[in-house]
Amino acid sequence: MGRHFLQIPGPTNVPDRVLRAIAQPTIDHRGPAFARLAGELLERLKTVFNTSGHVVVYPSSGTGAWEAALVNTLSPGDRVLAFETGHFSTLWCEMAARLGLVVDVVPGDWRHGADPALVAEHLTPDVAAVMVVHNETSTGVRSRVQEIRAALDRAGHGALLLVDTISSLGSMDYRHDEWGVDVTVGCSQKGLMLPPGIGFNAVSEKALAHRGRLPRSYWDWEPIVAANRQGFFPYTPPTNLLYGLREALVMLEEEGLDAVFARHDRHAEATRRAVRGWGLEVLCADEREHSSSLTAVLTPEGHDADAVRRLILDRYDMSLGTGLGRLAGRVFRIGHLGHFNDLMLAGTLSGVEMGLSAAGVPIKEGGTRAALAYLEGAGTGGTGGTGDTAGVEGGR
Amino acid sequence: MGRHFLQIPGPTNVPDRVLRAIAQPTIDHRGPAFARLAGELLERLKTVFNTSGHVVVYPSSGTGAWEAALVNTLSPGDRVLAFETGHFSTLWCEMAARLGLVVDVVPGDWRHGADPALVAEHLTPDVAAVMVVHNETSTGVRSRVQEIRAALDRAGHGALLLVDTISSLGSMDYRHDEWGVDVTVGCSQKGLMLPPGIGFNAVSEKALAHRGRLPRSYWDWEPIVAANRQGFFPYTPPTNLLYGLREALVMLEEEGLDAVFARHDRHAEATRRAVRGWGLEVLCADEREHSSSLTAVLTPEGHDADAVRRLILDRYDMSLGTGLGRLAGRVFRIGHLGHFNDLMLAGTLSGVEMGLSAAGVPIKEGGTRAALAYLEGAGTGGTGGTGDTAGVEGGR
Amino acid sequence: MGRHFLQIPGPTNVPDRVLRAIAQPTIDHRGPAFARLAGELLERLKTVFNTSGHVVVYPSSGTGAWEAALVNTLSPGDRVLAFETGHFSTLWCEMAARLGLVVDVVPGDWRHGADPALVAEHLTPDVAAVMVVHNETSTGVRSRVQEIRAALDRAGHGALLLVDTISSLGSMDYRHDEWGVDVTVGCSQKGLMLPPGIGFNAVSEKALAHRGRLPRSYWDWEPIVAANRQGFFPYTPPTNLLYGLREALVMLEEEGLDAVFARHDRHAEATRRAVRGWGLEVLCADEREHSSSLTAVLTPEGHDADAVRRLILDRYDMSLGTGLGRLAGRVFRIGHLGHFNDLMLAGTLSGVEMGLSAAGVPIKEGGTRAALAYLEGAGTGGTGGTGDTAGVEGGR
Amino acid sequence: MGRHFLQIPGPTNVPDRVLRAIAQPTIDHRGPAFARLAGELLERLKTVFNTSGHVVVYPSSGTGAWEAALVNTLSPGDRVLAFETGHFSTLWCEMAARLGLVVDVVPGDWRHGADPALVAEHLTPDVAAVMVVHNETSTGVRSRVQEIRAALDRAGHGALLLVDTISSLGSMDYRHDEWGVDVTVGCSQKGLMLPPGIGFNAVSEKALAHRGRLPRSYWDWEPIVAANRQGFFPYTPPTNLLYGLREALVMLEEEGLDAVFARHDRHAEATRRAVRGWGLEVLCADEREHSSSLTAVLTPEGHDADAVRRLILDRYDMSLGTGLGRLAGRVFRIGHLGHFNDLMLAGTLSGVEMGLSAAGVPIKEGGTRAALAYLEGAGTGGTGGTGDTAGVEGGR
Repeated sequence: MGRHFLQIPGPTNVPDRVLRAIAQPTIDHRGPAFARLAGELLERLKTVFNTSGHVVVYPSSGTGAWEAALVNTLSPGDRVLAFETGHFSTLWCEMAARLGLVVDVVPGDWRHGADPALVAEHLTPDVAAVMVVHNETSTGVRSRVQEIRAALDRAGHGALLLVDTISSLGSMDYRHDEWGVDVTVGCSQKGLMLPPGIGFNAVSEKALAHRGRLPRSYWDWEPIVAANRQGFFPYTPPTNLLYGLREALVMLEEEGLDAVFARHDRHAEATRRAVRGWGLEVLCADEREHSSSLTAVLTPEGHDADAVRRLILDRYDMSLGTGLGRLAGRVFRIGHLGHFNDLMLAGTLSGVEMGLSAAGVPIKEGGTRAALAYLEGAGTGGTGGTGDTAGVEGGR
Repeated sequence: MGRHFLQIPGPTNVPDRVLRAIAQPTIDHRGPAFARLAGELLERLKTVFNTSGHVVVYPSSGTGAWEAALVNTLSPGDRVLAFETGHFSTLWCEMAARLGLVVDVVPGDWRHGADPALVAEHLTPDVAAVMVVHNETSTGVRSRVQEIRAALDRAGHGALLLVDTISSLGSMDYRHDEWGVDVTVGCSQKGLMLPPGIGFNAVSEKALAHRGRLPRSYWDWEPIVAANRQGFFPYTPPTNLLYGLREALVMLEEEGLDAVFARHDRHAEATRRAVRGWGLEVLCADEREHSSSLTAVLTPEGHDADAVRRLILDRYDMSLGTGLGRLAGRVFRIGHLGHFNDLMLAGTLSGVEMGLSAAGVPIKEGGTRAALAYLEGAGTGGTGGTGDTAGVEGGR
Repeated sequence: MGRHFLQIPGPTNVPDRVLRAIAQPTIDHRGPAFARLAGELLERLKTVFNTSGHVVVYPSSGTGAWEAALVNTLSPGDRVLAFETGHFSTLWCEMAARLGLVVDVVPGDWRHGADPALVAEHLTPDVAAVMVVHNETSTGVRSRVQEIRAALDRAGHGALLLVDTISSLGSMDYRHDEWGVDVTVGCSQKGLMLPPGIGFNAVSEKALAHRGRLPRSYWDWEPIVAANRQGFFPYTPPTNLLYGLREALVMLEEEGLDAVFARHDRHAEATRRAVRGWGLEVLCADEREHSSSLTAVLTPEGHDADAVRRLILDRYDMSLGTGLGRLAGRVFRIGHLGHFNDLMLAGTLSGVEMGLSAAGVPIKEGGTRAALAYLEGAGTGGTGGTGDTAGVEGGR
Repeated sequence: MGRHFLQIPGPTNVPDRVLRAIAQPTIDHRGPAFARLAGELLERLKTVFNTSGHVVVYPSSGTGAWEAALVNTLSPGDRVLAFETGHFSTLWCEMAARLGLVVDVVPGDWRHGADPALVAEHLTPDVAAVMVVHNETSTGVRSRVQEIRAALDRAGHGALLLVDTISSLGSMDYRHDEWGVDVTVGCSQKGLMLPPGIGFNAVSEKALAHRGRLPRSYWDWEPIVAANRQGFFPYTPPTNLLYGLREALVMLEEEGLDAVFARHDRHAEATRRAVRGWGLEVLCADEREHSSSLTAVLTPEGHDADAVRRLILDRYDMSLGTGLGRLAGRVFRIGHLGHFNDLMLAGTLSGVEMGLSAAGVPIKEGGTRAALAYLEGAGTGGTGGTGDTAGVEGGR
């Protein structure tokens, strides 16, 4: 009874409005009504990526969008430079290798982002592309993409910059054009507040011009970009998820992207205060690199993070993210992104606090209280979706 | 962004499952599929009222079901005995008077339930019916119906017993047959987790036999009971809300009514601990009479409860119940009934705590924390709707 | 498999858009968002009734709205003049008698509307109100309300005019103000394309001023009209059905009421041509009085209309209306109102044609074909909800 | 107003039940509830393909599933033998070529299926795979897969057999195991009655063992099959579409696949009778090869099929399939698959008949009538979803 708390770092809690939009009857994907929908969507999407270029939409998971970024731009045997920031950067590298690319990996400790200072050192002349994960979903660490870009510029190197924004898109500030990114990889089920099933590539002019020779068909940008000009797709698009996408984009516009980012920043800071209040450690080790969409929490030695998660699911009906790869059993991850507000965060942190305690993890009192104190002090928690009692000010 | 917290004492948070059931296409109310639906519903409803008798279903609000209870059983000029327990008992008395009945009201202070000790004293021989509100939605006070029944029995008086369970039905233990109630009045939008639009009368054999002479047509039980035997209604029933009712009854059965009641008891106790933790006063003044579906909280002198509510709606997107009638501005009411769980309660209490503080109401720290401590200690918060990690035990 | 054809004359096929609107989360009926919704609805409703006065909204069936019309305006023992036009006019008269009114009934043959020529003759000076059913749902016959009004005016009689528009509202031209109607009775589940559960009274100034002395509480206009001024209701309104009402009113405005009426007129004429093409008889015996929302069809002597209906339900998954009262077994009724278009009508008539044939009713070939020929010739069948191929003209 | 008729050969009319299932809240794709869902789905899917092997599920369009079939089984430079049966067989060949395969195409006239008699002649020893489209969506022609299989067997050739069932799966008899197919390609938005967004590969043991060397990652069966054993996927699955898939599979099981196929056969035959009744020509030129899910209709010389389609969309709100590739302007396609019944077909054919006439295409009268006559005579049109009037027999 009561609502499930889906606090993994994606898929996120899909708004009812979006679910209802998705439940509209499917229409002819070659008809005029669809063309209007697609035209509208392709325009609106640009805002989210902060680009004036083209956004390619795939019926796929985010993993598919990863593959699309590689097979459109690179040729067999091309060298790519990647940064090990966690589980997902590792998976992307493995994919690149499987597709026949040579992958140079800058090793990492899974507690820091890609280090801009190491770019110059690893950037051999034959590097065709640099792959960076903007927000490592497995660790809650953000990479400073803008500084990576600056390092490439300083080196005067023409490598393409490919960036994964799977768990930051629509939740954290991101600027495809301004930061000189060539391909941005995104998907539907995180900050865009949709179910899984759509992958995105935002593509720079340079990337569109720079076609690689890896075999491709489904992922090929060219026929898609060409068909999109008329409002169509070269194969059947995921119509009902696109209905939801439109609704979600409207919601983000209604709130305003800056407000969306500020909301995520605020909830992330509150979460970190809770973690520290419990006497636990946030995985991210650099203050400049905290993710605003999720927080990975280390459990003390001898306490299995997955046991905590299971207890919380069983007792409090909340899903938290598991530790992935080398972090298995050592961290759990709290997703605080997407369709989320202060009281949902209060419920989430209360559940973590009760669960840690029930699982026997030694914590200090007052973590959740510290988060609430921060929320109270740090601006308003939203503008009251169904309320309109304008002008009420806090009296503290 | 994020979900609204609808924490008034009804309408309550309608489960998605129920909303989806309501969204099914409307069918022919005279066809065989409808007859099967109605037959099933009329049977399932008996469990909720704890009766083997008939439950009459109206397209109406709960107010309509109040009227039905009166016009079916009473005649112009009949005397009824009522207990002033709050705003709703008062409204029901006003309705009775408007319909031409003579109403004897046992006065009350809106902090206690109907006093069984006063029954005998007020029970003149010509009293045709006794009206009691089981759970006063305006005060969060429960009346001890079973003891009222015992007092009537001791007096050997044949008056009908009419009981309003608007905000207790499906949330708190209630026994139409065992407690010898003649007409139980209920509605859809509280513990039954439905939108408003359905009213109920559970009717004893005695009440069915005792037809009054007040004019009636729409509310008349007889044609309804007769048509129900074939699975039909004498006028068009609210088909889509009935779809939702079926789903809600299935959900209550899946959890088990005893577990439902225990869940409400537990959340009510946690809420009271929060209130006391803040140093505030619960309106209900008798430990035996606390409601398990809502808690009314007194704000300190000089602090307008409605200003607190408005701030909480504006800043935290949560709706709380207003003070009604003579309690306007003096109390706010927290609904913790229906489709509700531990983390929703944690979010609710956190929002109240932050809101009180922001509104400048002097509170002590630790209210919400006290509630969580109670929740942790007092059994499990549910069986994890989407989880199944059986066997996990709390390690405290 | 495939969609059910719900071709009874109400409840009608509820549009998906309306069902999704109804599935929105329930909100606080005392909060600011609700007040905005209610304010908007109460304004929009006026257009449907063609009135500048007040429309009262009940959580009820249409039967409840009948009762409301009577108990608000009349006093015990008042005389009312009614016209027997079919099953529903008869039921309304029985209700009036049950409520203590004296009912003068002008007898009818169930194949004609209320005869304006007979008004003067039956209008004794003590008649307090005249009751007319605008569109007899049991017969498919329309009464000429405007001419009844004229007859009252010619007689210089001040009786109130109470009109039932249950199955015409939102489907057929109706003018509360212009025709001098005092109370118009309507409901949700016919031309308004909603599920059942809402009743309406549109009320003239004269009716509001003329309060009767029948006992009333739930149905009393006064507290409702007073509370409506602030956007609220004196008891819990059927929030989710109101969401649907808003959507349905928007849909009617999008199409335009004149276009809605023309669509219904056109489908009704096509249906009659099909009936005549089969060699069967339409129940309505006066060309001026055909209903545009439903058509009642007489089956030949010896052929049970209900057997035809059962076969059609079983074999073609279509619900048709049964013969009511004295018409049981002699007619079936085809509803062609609400959310309906040319191809749905073609499917409907095809099903009737196949069903009649399969049931052994002797029919001529070509009924459905005659209807289609009329549809082809008589203007466009709509503007192509999801299409926009403007400028395509028929080439016949 | 009224429902759109979506009579393209896919996406098809998605049942309300499926749309509501899709609108359920997204859950954790790594949690126990998801694992149960996936386990159930993967089992149920086998029935639809008639296989005891593995069915691989992709977040993709059907085009993606085409690519998966090729990249899993073949190596660069491999020779494949394909049959030109229409637009989609041609697109699949183009894809194969783009991926680096050598494609031998047996030419065709787009009015016949793949000719089993030509297999032996074209089957050079180095052919690695034979590609056949079971049901050409662009032409409405079915290929006799079983006879292709027999020809391969007679030749004693070990080539893999890859079959596209995009528009036949769940609508027409198909037997992955019995017919010795190695990879069957399917998708969600046709006979499975879902929105687009899921692709399928049913995979034989032989195909699983025979891994090609084309680069692959997203489409790679191995990690998917491995993860599926625990109820999971190697990347985020399209959770909400999977909810819909479960509901759709339950619906197919409720009706029974044999009944589903018989329903489609019957509607296809009725459609052909309508076409011939109008004096028009069905594109499929071999009586053994008619599709049961769609019918392509040739318009007479000088009459643009797309003009007819636009008129029908504009005037009757029905979408029909366009002529693709070399058939552009020469045919329109009527989809009669998926969630469909007799009266929907009657509406569909009526709309085509009225549209042809309005567009000035010379047709004979009586096409739709001939279809209805066939429907009446050829068994029941279904078992009356909401009816239960058992035992009614047709009386013709």
